[in-house]
Amino acid sequence: MIAPTPEPPYVAVIFTSQRTEGEGGYEATAQRMLELAARQPGFLGVESARDASGFGITVSYWRDEAAVAAWRAQADHAEAQRQGRDAWYSDHCVRVGRVVRASGSGGR
Amino acid sequence: MIAPTPEPPYVAVIFTSQRTEGEGGYEATAQRMLELAARQPGFLGVESARDASGFGITVSYWRDEAAVAAWRAQADHAEAQRQGRDAWYSDHCVRVGRVVRASGSGGR
Repeated sequence: MIAPTPEPPYVAVIFTSQRTEGEGGYEATAQRMLELAARQPGFLGVESARDASGFGITVSYWRDEAAVAAWRAQADHAEAQRQGRDAWYSDHCVRVGRVVRASGSGGR
Repeated sequence: MIAPTPEPPYVAVIFTSQRTEGEGGYEATAQRMLELAARQPGFLGVESARDASGFGITVSYWRDEAAVAAWRAQADHAEAQRQGRDAWYSDHCVRVGRVVRASGSGGR
């Protein structure tokens, strides 16, 4: 679903990843992280898609860099990041960007 | 696949969309647009994932805002955008952001 975000500026965290084959608690943790993120101060929304090959993109939107930093450091999330690196993702990348403009039929 | 991008800063165009049911030439045009984008000046890479429900995220990376503006105005791409709005997407959003930092095992 397209996230209803406020007028820019705000911050986008683009997380791209390739899943490994095993499950190992991934789905439950991913779901828990979405719920946890949604309760973080400065959280604006999240969008996520993963294709049949296991390649996925999750973009989360935040009020400012401070909100992103707090979420990155949140203890349960830090542990999930470690598990992700060790077991769930064969490859991943996090890019942080400042959204300066938005348009389209959704997401505003 | 995670796009190998240079060190930030660069520009990310986050395109989120919900596909309609019909095909109507979508796949062929989408493929052609990827090839066309890759030949544009300032193109750095692209990542795309669409899930089984038809929700998709495509993030393209560009050297600067001028490169994004040129791609948006490219004639074949402008026509594809029109078809997208009219037929292929029930909902879509484009967000443009300036990437300030990147990390992870891939994408650099």
